[in-house]
Amino acid sequence: MKFSPLVDELIQSLRCLPGVGPKSAQRMAFQLLERERSSGAHLADTLAKAMREVGHCQSCRTFTEEEKCSICASSKRGNSETICVVETPADVLAVESGGHFSGRYFVLLGHLSPLDGVGPDELGLHLLEQHLASGDVNELILATNPTVEGDATAHFIGDIAARYEVKVTRIAHGVPVGGELEYVDSTTLALSFTGRKQL
Amino acid sequence: MKFSPLVDELIQSLRCLPGVGPKSAQRMAFQLLERERSSGAHLADTLAKAMREVGHCQSCRTFTEEEKCSICASSKRGNSETICVVETPADVLAVESGGHFSGRYFVLLGHLSPLDGVGPDELGLHLLEQHLASGDVNELILATNPTVEGDATAHFIGDIAARYEVKVTRIAHGVPVGGELEYVDSTTLALSFTGRKQL
Repeated sequence: MKFSPLVDELIQSLRCLPGVGPKSAQRMAFQLLERERSSGAHLADTLAKAMREVGHCQSCRTFTEEEKCSICASSKRGNSETICVVETPADVLAVESGGHFSGRYFVLLGHLSPLDGVGPDELGLHLLEQHLASGDVNELILATNPTVEGDATAHFIGDIAARYEVKVTRIAHGVPVGGELEYVDSTTLALSFTGRKQL
Repeated sequence: MKFSPLVDELIQSLRCLPGVGPKSAQRMAFQLLERERSSGAHLADTLAKAMREVGHCQSCRTFTEEEKCSICASSKRGNSETICVVETPADVLAVESGGHFSGRYFVLLGHLSPLDGVGPDELGLHLLEQHLASGDVNELILATNPTVEGDATAHFIGDIAARYEVKVTRIAHGVPVGGELEYVDSTTLALSFTGRKQL
Protein backbone atom coordinates (compact mmCIF):
# COMPACT_ATOMS: atom_id res chain seq x y z
CA MET A 1 0.00 0.00 0.00
CA LYS A 2 1.09 3.52 -0.70
CA PHE A 3 -0.25 6.96 0.03
CA SER A 4 -2.34 8.82 -2.53
CA PRO A 5 -0.40 9.70 -5.74
CA LEU A 6 0.05 13.38 -4.92
CA VAL A 7 1.20 12.72 -1.34
CA ASP A 8 3.62 10.09 -2.67
CA GLU A 9 4.97 12.53 -5.23
CA LEU A 10 5.46 15.16 -2.54
CA ILE A 11 7.43 12.68 -0.40
CA GLN A 12 9.57 11.68 -3.40
CA SER A 13 10.20 15.31 -4.36
CA LEU A 14 11.31 16.25 -0.85
CA ARG A 15 14.07 13.66 -1.14
CA CYS A 16 16.02 15.93 -3.51
CA LEU A 17 16.97 17.94 -0.41
CA PRO A 18 20.37 16.95 0.99
CA GLY A 19 20.24 14.72 4.08
CA VAL A 20 16.57 13.85 3.62
CA GLY A 21 15.80 10.13 3.40
CA PRO A 22 12.44 8.37 2.97
CA LYS A 23 11.41 8.67 6.65
CA SER A 24 12.39 12.32 6.99
CA ALA A 25 10.63 13.16 3.72
CA GLN A 26 7.47 11.45 4.99
CA ARG A 27 7.66 13.34 8.27
CA MET A 28 8.15 16.65 6.44
CA ALA A 29 5.24 16.00 4.10
CA PHE A 30 2.88 15.10 6.95
CA GLN A 31 3.89 18.04 9.08
CA LEU A 32 3.32 20.44 6.18
CA LEU A 33 -0.04 18.84 5.32
CA GLU A 34 -1.23 18.64 8.91
CA ARG A 35 -0.12 21.88 10.44
CA GLU A 36 1.78 24.14 8.06
CA ARG A 37 -0.23 24.59 4.88
CA SER A 38 0.51 28.31 4.64
CA SER A 39 4.24 27.90 5.35
CA GLY A 40 4.32 25.10 2.78
CA ALA A 41 2.62 27.25 0.16
CA HIS A 42 5.03 30.09 0.94
CA LEU A 43 8.00 27.72 0.63
CA ALA A 44 6.68 26.52 -2.74
CA ASP A 45 6.39 30.13 -3.99
CA THR A 46 9.84 31.16 -2.76
CA LEU A 47 11.44 28.00 -4.07
CA ALA A 48 9.93 28.41 -7.54
CA LYS A 49 10.99 32.06 -7.63
CA ALA A 50 14.53 31.34 -6.40
CA MET A 51 15.08 28.46 -8.85
CA ARG A 52 13.96 30.76 -11.67
CA GLU A 53 15.60 34.06 -10.74
CA VAL A 54 18.73 33.49 -8.67
CA GLY A 55 21.84 33.60 -10.84
CA HIS A 56 25.48 34.41 -10.28
CA CYS A 57 27.11 37.77 -9.61
CA GLN A 58 28.84 38.83 -12.82
CA SER A 59 31.91 39.87 -10.91
CA CYS A 60 32.39 37.33 -8.09
CA ARG A 61 30.05 34.43 -9.02
CA THR A 62 28.20 34.29 -5.70
CA PHE A 63 24.44 33.69 -5.77
CA THR A 64 22.32 36.77 -6.38
CA GLU A 65 19.17 37.70 -8.24
CA GLU A 66 20.76 41.02 -9.29
CA GLU A 67 23.55 41.53 -11.83
CA LYS A 68 26.08 42.09 -9.07
CA CYS A 69 26.01 41.05 -5.42
CA SER A 70 25.82 43.67 -2.68
CA ILE A 71 29.58 43.62 -2.07
CA CYS A 72 30.59 43.90 -5.75
CA ALA A 73 27.94 46.58 -6.30
CA SER A 74 29.19 48.76 -3.42
CA SER A 75 31.45 51.58 -4.60
CA LYS A 76 33.74 51.14 -1.60
CA ARG A 77 34.40 47.40 -1.76
CA GLY A 78 33.57 46.55 -5.37
CA ASN A 79 36.74 48.18 -6.64
CA SER A 80 39.00 46.92 -3.90
CA GLU A 81 42.48 45.82 -5.01
CA THR A 82 42.36 42.76 -2.74
CA ILE A 83 40.41 39.68 -3.80
CA CYS A 84 39.71 36.81 -1.43
CA VAL A 85 39.12 33.50 -3.25
CA VAL A 86 36.71 31.14 -1.44
CA GLU A 87 34.96 27.91 -2.39
CA THR A 88 31.33 28.65 -1.50
CA PRO A 89 28.96 31.54 -0.72
CA ALA A 90 28.79 30.17 2.85
CA ASP A 91 32.53 30.82 3.13
CA VAL A 92 31.91 34.46 2.18
CA LEU A 93 29.48 34.67 5.08
CA ALA A 94 32.02 33.07 7.43
CA VAL A 95 34.77 35.56 6.49
CA GLU A 96 32.32 38.48 6.63
CA SER A 97 31.16 37.49 10.11
CA GLY A 98 34.71 38.17 11.31
CA GLY A 99 34.52 41.70 9.97
CA HIS A 100 38.28 41.93 9.42
CA PHE A 101 38.33 41.73 5.62
CA SER A 102 37.21 44.72 3.58
CA GLY A 103 38.13 43.65 0.06
CA ARG A 104 36.00 41.80 -2.47
CA TYR A 105 35.53 38.11 -3.06
CA PHE A 106 35.72 35.56 -5.81
CA VAL A 107 33.56 32.47 -5.27
CA LEU A 108 34.72 29.30 -7.05
CA LEU A 109 31.51 27.37 -6.25
CA GLY A 110 33.55 24.20 -5.72
CA HIS A 111 37.13 23.02 -6.00
CA LEU A 112 39.17 21.32 -8.72
CA SER A 113 38.03 17.72 -8.94
CA PRO A 114 38.86 16.19 -12.33
CA LEU A 115 37.16 12.89 -11.49
CA ASP A 116 33.85 14.73 -10.96
CA GLY A 117 34.37 16.75 -14.14
CA VAL A 118 35.14 19.97 -12.27
CA GLY A 119 37.96 21.76 -14.06
CA PRO A 120 39.12 25.41 -14.34
CA ASP A 121 36.14 26.31 -16.55
CA GLU A 122 33.59 25.10 -13.98
CA LEU A 123 35.29 27.23 -11.31
CA GLY A 124 35.10 30.33 -13.52
CA LEU A 125 38.88 30.80 -13.54
CA HIS A 126 38.70 32.63 -16.90
CA LEU A 127 36.67 35.31 -15.10
CA LEU A 128 39.26 35.47 -12.31
CA GLU A 129 41.97 35.75 -14.97
CA GLN A 130 40.11 38.73 -16.48
CA HIS A 131 40.19 40.42 -13.07
CA LEU A 132 43.93 39.72 -12.80
CA ALA A 133 44.61 40.88 -16.39
CA SER A 134 42.77 44.16 -15.83
CA GLY A 135 45.60 45.30 -13.55
CA ASP A 136 43.16 46.36 -10.79
CA VAL A 137 44.23 43.58 -8.46
CA ASN A 138 46.98 44.01 -5.96
CA GLU A 139 46.69 40.91 -3.81
CA LEU A 140 44.93 37.58 -4.17
CA ILE A 141 44.17 35.86 -0.84
CA LEU A 142 43.55 32.15 -1.34
CA ALA A 143 41.03 31.07 1.33
CA THR A 144 40.03 27.69 -0.09
CA ASN A 145 39.51 24.94 2.46
CA PRO A 146 42.64 23.29 3.94
CA THR A 147 41.81 19.96 2.28
CA VAL A 148 43.73 18.10 -0.44
CA GLU A 149 41.37 19.47 -3.13
CA GLY A 150 41.33 22.96 -1.63
CA ASP A 151 45.12 23.06 -1.48
CA ALA A 152 45.44 21.79 -5.06
CA THR A 153 42.97 24.45 -6.22
CA ALA A 154 44.93 27.12 -4.34
CA HIS A 155 48.20 26.06 -6.01
CA PHE A 156 46.58 26.03 -9.43
CA ILE A 157 45.23 29.56 -8.96
CA GLY A 158 48.59 30.65 -7.51
CA ASP A 159 50.30 29.56 -10.74
CA ILE A 160 47.84 31.59 -12.85
CA ALA A 161 48.28 34.67 -10.67
CA ALA A 162 52.08 34.39 -10.92
CA ARG A 163 51.78 34.99 -14.67
CA TYR A 164 50.17 38.37 -14.01
CA GLU A 165 52.70 39.25 -11.32
CA VAL A 166 50.02 39.64 -8.68
CA LYS A 167 50.92 39.05 -5.04
CA VAL A 168 49.38 35.77 -3.90
CA THR A 169 48.87 34.76 -0.27
CA ARG A 170 47.35 31.73 1.41
CA ILE A 171 45.48 31.97 4.74
CA ALA A 172 47.44 30.63 7.73
CA HIS A 173 46.89 27.10 8.97
CA GLY A 174 47.56 26.09 12.54
CA VAL A 175 46.04 25.42 15.93
CA PRO A 176 42.59 27.09 16.21
CA VAL A 177 42.10 29.63 19.00
CA GLY A 178 40.47 27.99 22.02
CA GLY A 179 41.60 24.53 20.87
CA GLU A 180 43.77 22.25 22.95
CA LEU A 181 47.04 20.89 21.56
CA GLU A 182 46.14 17.45 22.89
CA TYR A 183 43.17 17.17 20.54
CA VAL A 184 44.65 18.78 17.43
CA ASP A 185 45.56 16.38 14.59
CA SER A 186 49.24 15.88 13.78
CA THR A 187 49.13 17.55 10.32
CA THR A 188 47.68 20.76 11.76
CA LEU A 189 50.21 20.67 14.56
CA ALA A 190 53.06 20.19 12.05
CA LEU A 191 51.75 23.18 10.04
CA SER A 192 51.58 25.28 13.20
CA PHE A 193 55.28 24.57 13.79
CA THR A 194 56.45 25.25 10.21
CA GLY A 195 54.38 28.46 10.22
CA ARG A 196 55.69 29.70 13.60
CA LYS A 197 56.41 33.41 14.09
CA GLN A 198 58.89 35.28 16.24
CA LEU A 199 57.22 36.97 19.23
CA MET B 1 26.49 40.59 5.92
CA LYS B 2 23.69 38.49 4.52
CA PHE B 3 22.97 36.74 1.26
CA SER B 4 20.86 38.41 -1.40
CA PRO B 5 17.20 38.96 -0.33
CA LEU B 6 15.77 36.09 -2.39
CA VAL B 7 18.42 33.59 -1.23
CA ASP B 8 17.83 34.71 2.36
CA GLU B 9 14.08 34.26 1.97
CA LEU B 10 14.60 30.77 0.53
CA ILE B 11 16.76 29.82 3.53
CA GLN B 12 14.16 31.21 5.95
CA SER B 13 11.31 29.42 4.16
CA LEU B 14 13.11 26.06 4.27
CA ARG B 15 13.15 26.32 8.06
CA CYS B 16 9.43 25.51 8.21
CA LEU B 17 10.42 21.90 7.51
CA PRO B 18 10.71 19.82 10.70
CA GLY B 19 14.27 19.20 11.89
CA VAL B 20 15.76 21.88 9.64
CA GLY B 21 17.81 24.54 11.43
CA PRO B 22 19.67 27.56 9.99
CA LYS B 23 22.74 25.58 8.84
CA SER B 24 20.75 22.76 7.23
CA ALA B 25 18.47 25.26 5.50
CA GLN B 26 21.53 27.06 4.10
CA ARG B 27 23.01 23.78 2.89
CA MET B 28 19.71 22.80 1.24
CA ALA B 29 19.34 26.18 -0.47
CA PHE B 30 22.90 26.08 -1.84
CA GLN B 31 22.63 22.50 -3.03
CA LEU B 32 19.39 23.28 -4.87
CA LEU B 33 20.83 26.47 -6.39
CA GLU B 34 24.14 24.91 -7.37
CA ARG B 35 23.21 21.50 -8.64
CA GLU B 36 19.51 20.75 -8.51
CA ARG B 37 17.61 23.55 -10.19
CA SER B 38 15.23 21.20 -11.99
CA SER B 39 14.55 19.07 -8.89
CA GLY B 40 14.00 22.27 -6.93
CA ALA B 41 11.54 23.59 -9.48
CA HIS B 42 9.74 20.23 -9.47
CA LEU B 43 9.60 20.26 -5.66
CA ALA B 44 8.13 23.77 -5.76
CA ASP B 45 5.42 22.65 -8.21
CA THR B 46 4.53 19.50 -6.29
CA LEU B 47 4.53 21.33 -2.98
CA ALA B 48 2.23 24.08 -4.25
CA LYS B 49 -0.11 21.50 -5.76
CA ALA B 50 -0.14 19.31 -2.65
CA MET B 51 -0.77 22.23 -0.28
CA ARG B 52 -3.68 23.29 -2.47
CA GLU B 53 -5.27 19.96 -3.36
CA VAL B 54 -4.57 17.37 -0.69
CA GLY B 55 -7.47 17.08 1.73
CA HIS B 56 -8.87 14.41 4.00
CA CYS B 57 -10.67 11.21 3.06
CA GLN B 58 -14.36 11.77 3.85
CA SER B 59 -14.57 8.37 5.45
CA CYS B 60 -11.30 7.78 7.33
CA ARG B 61 -9.63 11.24 7.43
CA THR B 62 -6.30 10.15 5.94
CA PHE B 63 -4.61 12.46 3.43
CA THR B 64 -5.85 12.18 -0.14
CA GLU B 65 -6.58 14.47 -3.06
CA GLU B 66 -9.69 12.41 -3.91
CA GLU B 67 -12.97 12.29 -1.99
CA LYS B 68 -12.08 8.92 -0.54
CA CYS B 69 -8.72 7.22 -0.08
CA SER B 70 -7.90 4.07 -2.03
CA ILE B 71 -8.85 1.76 0.87
CA CYS B 72 -12.18 3.44 1.64
CA ALA B 73 -12.98 3.62 -2.09
CA SER B 74 -12.36 -0.10 -2.64
CA SER B 75 -15.58 -2.11 -2.66
CA LYS B 76 -13.92 -4.95 -0.77
CA ARG B 77 -12.38 -3.06 2.15
CA GLY B 78 -14.37 0.17 2.18
CA ASN B 79 -17.42 -1.59 3.64
CA SER B 80 -15.52 -3.78 6.05
CA GLU B 81 -17.15 -4.24 9.46
CA THR B 82 -13.80 -3.86 11.23
CA ILE B 83 -12.29 -0.42 11.74
CA CYS B 84 -8.73 0.07 12.96
CA VAL B 85 -8.19 3.44 14.70
CA VAL B 86 -4.67 4.85 14.29
CA GLU B 87 -3.05 8.19 15.07
CA THR B 88 -1.37 9.08 11.76
CA PRO B 89 -1.36 8.15 8.04
CA ALA B 90 2.15 6.73 8.61
CA ASP B 91 0.61 4.26 11.08
CA VAL B 92 -1.75 3.10 8.31
CA LEU B 93 1.31 2.37 6.17
CA ALA B 94 2.96 0.48 9.04
CA VAL B 95 -0.10 -1.74 9.59
CA GLU B 96 -0.56 -2.24 5.83
CA SER B 97 3.08 -3.30 5.42
CA GLY B 98 2.31 -6.29 7.66
CA GLY B 99 -0.49 -7.33 5.30
CA HIS B 100 -2.47 -9.07 8.07
CA PHE B 101 -5.29 -6.55 8.42
CA SER B 102 -7.95 -6.37 5.74
CA GLY B 103 -10.47 -4.00 7.29
CA ARG B 104 -10.67 -0.23 6.97
CA TYR B 105 -9.04 2.51 9.01
CA PHE B 106 -9.90 5.63 10.91
CA VAL B 107 -7.08 8.16 11.19
CA LEU B 108 -7.25 10.52 14.19
CA LEU B 109 -4.42 12.76 12.94
CA GLY B 110 -3.15 13.16 16.49
CA HIS B 111 -4.15 12.18 20.01
CA LEU B 112 -6.12 13.84 22.79
CA SER B 113 -3.99 16.62 24.21
CA PRO B 114 -6.12 19.27 25.98
CA LEU B 115 -3.12 21.49 26.73
CA ASP B 116 -2.39 21.79 22.99
CA GLY B 117 -6.08 22.40 22.26
CA VAL B 118 -6.58 18.96 20.70
CA GLY B 119 -9.97 17.64 21.81
CA PRO B 120 -12.51 15.16 20.39
CA ASP B 121 -13.51 17.58 17.60
CA GLU B 122 -9.95 17.93 16.31
CA LEU B 123 -9.66 14.13 16.14
CA GLY B 124 -12.87 13.88 14.11
CA LEU B 125 -14.57 11.69 16.71
CA HIS B 126 -18.03 12.87 15.56
CA LEU B 127 -17.25 11.23 12.20
CA LEU B 128 -16.18 8.02 13.96
CA GLU B 129 -19.41 8.18 15.99
CA GLN B 130 -21.39 8.39 12.73
CA HIS B 131 -19.69 5.20 11.54
CA LEU B 132 -20.56 3.51 14.85
CA ALA B 133 -24.15 4.81 14.81
CA SER B 134 -24.72 3.50 11.26
CA GLY B 135 -24.61 -0.06 12.59
CA ASP B 136 -22.12 -1.17 9.91
CA VAL B 137 -19.30 -1.62 12.40
CA ASN B 138 -18.70 -4.90 14.15
CA GLU B 139 -15.34 -4.34 15.79
CA LEU B 140 -13.22 -1.30 16.59
CA ILE B 141 -9.51 -2.06 16.96
CA LEU B 142 -7.73 0.71 18.88
CA ALA B 143 -4.17 0.90 17.54
CA THR B 144 -3.12 4.26 18.98
CA ASN B 145 0.46 4.46 20.22
CA PRO B 146 1.22 2.85 23.59
CA THR B 147 1.98 6.22 25.19
CA VAL B 148 0.11 8.03 27.95
CA GLU B 149 -1.73 10.18 25.39
CA GLY B 150 -2.37 7.26 23.07
CA ASP B 151 -3.77 5.16 25.90
CA ALA B 152 -5.97 8.02 27.12
CA THR B 153 -7.29 8.50 23.58
CA ALA B 154 -7.99 4.77 23.29
CA HIS B 155 -9.96 4.76 26.55
CA PHE B 156 -11.95 7.82 25.48
CA ILE B 157 -12.88 6.19 22.17
CA GLY B 158 -13.61 2.92 23.98
CA ASP B 159 -16.19 4.73 26.13
CA ILE B 160 -17.90 6.18 23.05
CA ALA B 161 -17.99 2.80 21.32
CA ALA B 162 -19.51 1.17 24.42
CA ARG B 163 -22.57 3.39 23.99
CA TYR B 164 -23.18 1.86 20.55
CA GLU B 165 -22.54 -1.67 21.79
CA VAL B 166 -19.68 -2.21 19.37
CA LYS B 167 -16.94 -4.67 20.29
CA VAL B 168 -13.79 -2.71 21.14
CA THR B 169 -10.29 -4.21 21.24
CA ARG B 170 -6.85 -2.76 21.96
CA ILE B 171 -3.74 -4.08 20.20
CA ALA B 172 -1.52 -6.25 22.42
CA HIS B 173 1.44 -4.75 24.21
CA GLY B 174 4.44 -6.83 25.19
CA VAL B 175 7.97 -7.82 24.31
CA PRO B 176 8.66 -7.18 20.59
CA VAL B 177 9.69 -10.15 18.46
CA GLY B 178 13.48 -10.33 18.13
CA GLY B 179 13.93 -8.20 21.25
CA GLU B 180 15.85 -9.35 24.31
CA LEU B 181 14.20 -9.36 27.72
CA GLU B 182 17.34 -7.80 29.19
CA TYR B 183 16.84 -4.59 27.21
CA VAL B 184 13.05 -4.29 27.44
CA ASP B 185 11.74 -1.58 29.81
CA SER B 186 9.96 -2.67 32.96
CA THR B 187 6.51 -1.35 31.98
CA THR B 188 6.52 -3.33 28.74
CA LEU B 189 7.73 -6.39 30.62
CA ALA B 190 4.95 -5.96 33.20
CA LEU B 191 2.38 -5.70 30.37
CA SER B 192 3.79 -8.83 28.75
CA PHE B 193 3.16 -10.71 32.03
CA THR B 194 -0.36 -9.40 32.62
CA GLY B 195 -1.20 -10.17 28.99
CA ARG B 196 0.23 -13.72 29.03
CA LYS B 197 -1.58 -16.53 27.19
CA GLN B 198 -1.83 -20.25 27.76
CA LEU B 199 0.25 -22.28 25.29
